[in-house]
Amino acid sequence: MNNFNWDTSFLVDFDLNTGFSKTAGTTKRHLSQMRGMFCDKDAVEAILTREDPLVYEFHELGCPERAGDLAFGTTILYPGKIGNEYYFTKGHFHTILDTAEVYYTLDGEGYMVMENPEGDCIEMPLAKGQAVYVPRRYAHRTVNTGSTPLVLFYTFAADAGHDYGTIETKGYHKLIVEKDGKPCVTNNPNWKSL
Amino acid sequence: MNNFNWDTSFLVDFDLNTGFSKTAGTTKRHLSQMRGMFCDKDAVEAILTREDPLVYEFHELGCPERAGDLAFGTTILYPGKIGNEYYFTKGHFHTILDTAEVYYTLDGEGYMVMENPEGDCIEMPLAKGQAVYVPRRYAHRTVNTGSTPLVLFYTFAADAGHDYGTIETKGYHKLIVEKDGKPCVTNNPNWKSL
Repeated sequence: MNNFNWDTSFLVDFDLNTGFSKTAGTTKRHLSQMRGMFCDKDAVEAILTREDPLVYEFHELGCPERAGDLAFGTTILYPGKIGNEYYFTKGHFHTILDTAEVYYTLDGEGYMVMENPEGDCIEMPLAKGQAVYVPRRYAHRTVNTGSTPLVLFYTFAADAGHDYGTIETKGYHKLIVEKDGKPCVTNNPNWKSL
Repeated sequence: MNNFNWDTSFLVDFDLNTGFSKTAGTTKRHLSQMRGMFCDKDAVEAILTREDPLVYEFHELGCPERAGDLAFGTTILYPGKIGNEYYFTKGHFHTILDTAEVYYTLDGEGYMVMENPEGDCIEMPLAKGQAVYVPRRYAHRTVNTGSTPLVLFYTFAADAGHDYGTIETKGYHKLIVEKDGKPCVTNNPNWKSL
């Protein structure tokens, strides 16, 4: 666990290429922790009989969930696929729905996949040196469509909160899959209208 | 003026070395716009008889001052001195005092100089790949003590607001000056207790 004093100033190094820090450790998400989230569930189970790959890791710096503070850090999303679906982060809504998030891509390529509760969907391409604005009210998930780690620096309001449950239960409307060797946006056949 | 739609997602490129963007223009601050802020006012006036150097530029992306939105961009602070005082940004308090700001140094070196209304002062060194947390309640100013542009990516709550007046009137308690060829923190002889 990382411990910083958010009432005073502090420094955290993040390597501008790899996203890793000498100061702060990461939280890791292995495939077994995302079991139901990929479309091809048989492929997931087949992989898990052999290994439990690390899909992504990110920094939780222990920011208090307090108005006026800003949580920040990097996410490192590894390249890979489950069936033809690219590795992604779990993704979430903010509990306070009307809160935005800023991501700045330090390395790699992929997509930011977003949707609001009304089902409006946005997929934005990510590339090194591109900042993407995740607007208020939009759930957001990062997808790595490249062959190297996708590294992002993020900032969001510390009291925004995370609602992972809605996405875990319903899934996203859209998937990013490989088709003819290229990333392609498709409808999620398993999307649940609850 | 940059125009983006903050109700939906958008991309803005920021070069990871220079901080400049092909998508968004910068707001420029020349020495004449910071006339009373440097300690050696005679040196300022002498320079202004010959030229009006660009001290820094930054991105104003037009984020609405609305709860839940996040303003972001880069600042490019040039190397230079007025007398023995290094170039700095104007610096400000947030109007909503209890709001933080996150800065991530992309290139260069310098200091983040901070102080709260009670007069507590913090000076944090800035270096490439270091993120610095500006806590709630602290006015903040960037100082370039290097020989190359100091480039920072920043994010803050869009409704935080900027109070430049307090600092313009009172100054900062602390200055960063060159002494024996090295940066040094000193007390501001002109600081006004109002």
